[in-house]
Amino acid sequence: MISGLDPTLLLWLNLVGVFVFGLSGGLAAVQARLDVFGVIVLSAVVAFTGGIVRDLLIGVPPETFRDWRYLAAAGAAGVVCFFAAPSIDRRQRGVQLFDAIGLGLFCVSGASKALDFGLGPVQAVLLGAITGIGGGMLRDVLLREVPTVLRQDLYAIPALVGGAVAVIAREAGSYSVWFPLLGAAVCFAVRMAGVHYKIEAPREPPRRRSSD
Amino acid sequence: MISGLDPTLLLWLNLVGVFVFGLSGGLAAVQARLDVFGVIVLSAVVAFTGGIVRDLLIGVPPETFRDWRYLAAAGAAGVVCFFAAPSIDRRQRGVQLFDAIGLGLFCVSGASKALDFGLGPVQAVLLGAITGIGGGMLRDVLLREVPTVLRQDLYAIPALVGGAVAVIAREAGSYSVWFPLLGAAVCFAVRMAGVHYKIEAPREPPRRRSSD
Amino acid sequence: MISGLDPTLLLWLNLVGVFVFGLSGGLAAVQARLDVFGVIVLSAVVAFTGGIVRDLLIGVPPETFRDWRYLAAAGAAGVVCFFAAPSIDRRQRGVQLFDAIGLGLFCVSGASKALDFGLGPVQAVLLGAITGIGGGMLRDVLLREVPTVLRQDLYAIPALVGGAVAVIAREAGSYSVWFPLLGAAVCFAVRMAGVHYKIEAPREPPRRRSSD
Repeated sequence: MISGLDPTLLLWLNLVGVFVFGLSGGLAAVQARLDVFGVIVLSAVVAFTGGIVRDLLIGVPPETFRDWRYLAAAGAAGVVCFFAAPSIDRRQRGVQLFDAIGLGLFCVSGASKALDFGLGPVQAVLLGAITGIGGGMLRDVLLREVPTVLRQDLYAIPALVGGAVAVIAREAGSYSVWFPLLGAAVCFAVRMAGVHYKIEAPREPPRRRSSD
Repeated sequence: MISGLDPTLLLWLNLVGVFVFGLSGGLAAVQARLDVFGVIVLSAVVAFTGGIVRDLLIGVPPETFRDWRYLAAAGAAGVVCFFAAPSIDRRQRGVQLFDAIGLGLFCVSGASKALDFGLGPVQAVLLGAITGIGGGMLRDVLLREVPTVLRQDLYAIPALVGGAVAVIAREAGSYSVWFPLLGAAVCFAVRMAGVHYKIEAPREPPRRRSSD
Repeated sequence: MISGLDPTLLLWLNLVGVFVFGLSGGLAAVQARLDVFGVIVLSAVVAFTGGIVRDLLIGVPPETFRDWRYLAAAGAAGVVCFFAAPSIDRRQRGVQLFDAIGLGLFCVSGASKALDFGLGPVQAVLLGAITGIGGGMLRDVLLREVPTVLRQDLYAIPALVGGAVAVIAREAGSYSVWFPLLGAAVCFAVRMAGVHYKIEAPREPPRRRSSD
């Protein structure tokens, strides 16, 4: 059924994506002062959510639980977080950094897998973005924060742009491994630029303050 | 496989449902002072959740991402919300109003699709209610509120009644387009009556206040 | 396709699991002072989540909505909670107790069903744990609490141990009904021991207090 992107590339995009999203979940858990099991559980939840949502939306059984390599990557991320966290100074920075890498990898892998299963290009870009956004959204909900994707500017946009790079290349006939990697890099760069320069998207102006 | 309700009716029920749930999500996002992308993302999340949950529970791939018309309806709702919101005075009212319309449309379309795929009548009514409730529940969770369906009386009940009207008509052999529309209208009317008259369901009486 | 565990045992594990998770959700709703419909809705949500997640991850349509017995068990739990709650003194204890029973039953039934559908033993244990954890996690999120599985020690561990007992027995060739029951009992015992003795897992030591 899959006859698209180089399977080895797709596997690695997913594996590294699972690992870095696991790091972002684990660091957020350390920051929230969860115990070692809480860290590993949140790490795994964040690592797996994106891929599970992607596969459910495409309509295939989630591959995560079929393949021990994903399980190993997520577990390793949780363990690394718990033991390495005390030596990391700026944790919020770490969460954002790994989240941005994962966003880039997952938006590209999600979009590519969607194309492989016959979805249209617009749908593939959207599905890629959802794949990238899902893990971080659940991380924030479980820690009782309003999800970053709703609060922060330039979170959904880089995911859409990164997926679009990969999809446009495929639609143009290229199965090169470079365009997905380019898409992931563009997504990461735009996202980190937004974090760094605190780029703000337009917001409805405050007309009057409600007492609520 | 589908041999039930008029497909055109089902499409329109879903399209209008996606659009009005998108409006309810987008208005709630404007109210929470999210930026333009947050508004569009929440709009899309609320618009799509019900239908995705419905299709996953039935066991078919979610149709949302197969069909550009749903994507267009959800995107339009987000854009409309961001630009029209400043001119809307009573936003909470708007969220509730569009939510109630969406609840009516989705409980009927969910129940009808469940029947089409061979679920029993009780299951179909429940699945219709879940379809209607899902979007608003996720909207409230993402904005860190206890979901309306848990707090407010007469939220689940109208969804069950609306779905029941559609299911009973089908079980009685009618494939008329009027009964689903009647079900949606009954659901909407009961829900809005509950909002307007603040009808309260019995609650366990406070016996003593705990200090926690 | 299913050729594994005694189907009657699996049905009963699931039915009792659905009922006790329904009790835990309903009691938590009573505690949060939701009205009668809120109690029944939260009861049903908690009762069904685990099994739905399990079936989606395995890649089969969720069986919950195909079988009226699960619906009856969940509905009964909600009604029992609303009417019996005033006579229950220590509600938090009740939520934890029923949650622990459900955790034991679902981690075993989830792991067994995963084996039946051809997943590997490690995947089956993990899927069992997710089945057990899912319902309580959603209950906590909907009531705006950080999920127990993230906060409390010895929540994920008992679920993994219970599932492992069932899986190891199956891998050793035994289809006896006793090992799954043993797994559920071990999970319940470890979980309740953790609750009772407030066993604490290691936590990253506080190095300096941040002002945030």
